Amino acid sequence: MVTPEGTLELSLVEVPITEPQADQVMIRVEASPINPSDLGLLLGGADMSTAQVSVTSGHPLVTASISEGAMRSLAGRVGVSMPVGNEGAGTVIAAGTSDAAQALLGRTVAVAGGAMYAQFRCVSAALCLVLPEGTPARVGASSFVNPLTALGMVETMRREGHSALVHTAAASNLGQMLNRLCLEENVPLVNVVRKPEQEEILTTLGATYVCNSTSPTFMTDLSAAISETSATLAFDAIGGGKLASQILTAMEAASLATPQSYSRYGSTIHKQVYIYGGLDPSPTVLTRGFGMAWGLGGWLLTTFLQSLEPAAFQSLRERVASGLTTTFASTYTKEVSLAEALQPEAFSVYSKQATGEKYLINPHTM
Amino acid sequence: MVTPEGTLELSLVEVPITEPQADQVMIRVEASPINPSDLGLLLGGADMSTAQVSVTSGHPLVTASISEGAMRSLAGRVGVSMPVGNEGAGTVIAAGTSDAAQALLGRTVAVAGGAMYAQFRCVSAALCLVLPEGTPARVGASSFVNPLTALGMVETMRREGHSALVHTAAASNLGQMLNRLCLEENVPLVNVVRKPEQEEILTTLGATYVCNSTSPTFMTDLSAAISETSATLAFDAIGGGKLASQILTAMEAASLATPQSYSRYGSTIHKQVYIYGGLDPSPTVLTRGFGMAWGLGGWLLTTFLQSLEPAAFQSLRERVASGLTTTFASTYTKEVSLAEALQPEAFSVYSKQATGEKYLINPHTM
Repeated sequence: MVTPEGTLELSLVEVPITEPQADQVMIRVEASPINPSDLGLLLGGADMSTAQVSVTSGHPLVTASISEGAMRSLAGRVGVSMPVGNEGAGTVIAAGTSDAAQALLGRTVAVAGGAMYAQFRCVSAALCLVLPEGTPARVGASSFVNPLTALGMVETMRREGHSALVHTAAASNLGQMLNRLCLEENVPLVNVVRKPEQEEILTTLGATYVCNSTSPTFMTDLSAAISETSATLAFDAIGGGKLASQILTAMEAASLATPQSYSRYGSTIHKQVYIYGGLDPSPTVLTRGFGMAWGLGGWLLTTFLQSLEPAAFQSLRERVASGLTTTFASTYTKEVSLAEALQPEAFSVYSKQATGEKYLINPHTM
Repeated sequence: MVTPEGTLELSLVEVPITEPQADQVMIRVEASPINPSDLGLLLGGADMSTAQVSVTSGHPLVTASISEGAMRSLAGRVGVSMPVGNEGAGTVIAAGTSDAAQALLGRTVAVAGGAMYAQFRCVSAALCLVLPEGTPARVGASSFVNPLTALGMVETMRREGHSALVHTAAASNLGQMLNRLCLEENVPLVNVVRKPEQEEILTTLGATYVCNSTSPTFMTDLSAAISETSATLAFDAIGGGKLASQILTAMEAASLATPQSYSRYGSTIHKQVYIYGGLDPSPTVLTRGFGMAWGLGGWLLTTFLQSLEPAAFQSLRERVASGLTTTFASTYTKEVSLAEALQPEAFSVYSKQATGEKYLINPHTM
């Protein structure tokens, strides 16, 4: 909850459990990841270095200050306690009277239902992805956000007429998944990372093109990789700074390398960067030396999913379920309880969104 | 011509006149505007404060320095003398044997043939727009770039599902044209200008929404105008600085004013800014506080025209011809000869692209 005074309050609250309606099931949530996409709602842009932890009704209560600037974009949620947790997995322990709901009784399911940082969650049976028999909840906890984002990137590439991809923050859980997916699908992928150890992670995973944006040869490396792959579409998790501009510049240079008549408007090949994250919250700075055939924009998984036919969505979900231990496998650095997630040793780590630091909540541990 | 040493050379050269082929006509060019879109090719990014004028073979020769940075994007034209002048009008004084060409003999025509800063220009008859009987060449000189850009903006708005427009540098020749067109078509238009006298120009022309980006109340004014018009598409001639970001921010604020459930990804209404000019060559700076449903990109008239069916293109051209003295009228501050265009008192003015300073070349005056 964000208070009108500009304070974030993170609390654990006990609420009554409702009976599932005919088409609903009750899930005992056993695993729910803390994704970068959860942090916006969870932390509300608060300055977590100001965080104080106290205890209320036997549960931790975290309070932290939100700057005036951050408050401006939070008007819509002030005073409203908002449950958090985009996705998770667990066991169906009760079901409504419908056949669809009854069929799920006892099964382990994954769901992107929101409000998953909870011990129990009642959702529509139709939202549930039934995990293959014997799959632990932990393995299915991240069945939606990252897998569908990776699949959505490749699908967007095909739909919009591109044939290769650039991805930034490429050593992330999602980035590793995208790397595996692109290798399987023979989609050339240029991975952009920020640290030598991240280069190594991707090289070990068989990535062909890995460029380090902090290297002095970055622009040369990036241009060479984009030239070899003919990538004209990038997905950028960083958002701020000059990275999007550098990618467009490298794409334009690659486009102009093919002989063509000079035009002061640059190449006619369309170059596109989609910003899907905001690891760097500073302004995006574009040095427009990449012609006129370019686009930059936001990319949101839910908007992409809404553009799919139901059958296409179902087929993506089934593909994820069958690849949970291979293509779409997630790894976690730490498993915490709900109360532990509200302790400084946890939030000081996961609030940084550092690559390779991914937390999993198990709401039934203490 | 740009030399390998980084010098721009502007010269007048005498070349032999060729006979029109069967489907061609020879135009005696009598009027050709200096548009912002001509200046990139004409000046090649040279620093015109370094310009020197000498005389070679009885004609002026201008030389000016080009910075190393600007040279990087000019590789494709180094050492190649490039004729300039996107559009113009004049009298057909000779024609090829085809019926189409013969039909134009003696008529005043407008053409976007390129290389129009010339006394005579041989082009395909099919490219010619025949001006209404009695129209002086001067009146038809700007029949393509500005009129088709204004029509293209409104057409793009309809195609992409928007219902109102924002336009920057809105007091320009093009901006005044767009204002007239939008008034005729009942398209709400938010005009953004930089000076009080430009506000007055547009208000006098019947513009409903005029916002001055240098006013302390700019963001409030812009947000109110965008809110009233529901504009979600902007065409920006400025390019650099924070204006595109301010427009997206105001659009998002207007979208969020309608009651809806809070989403940390902002409104789901797509907001788009197309950059079609670069009056401010500094970087574009985006402070991404406008959600995820947004796009920014380049917009180029030729790309738009290529997307049109031939019949649609012809109908736009005819519409321009019939509105040359009304909707699509252009005004010029000065008429110069080819030689005068290469004198400091001329290029020091038109190279600044100041609103309200538009030059017309008449290649047959001395």
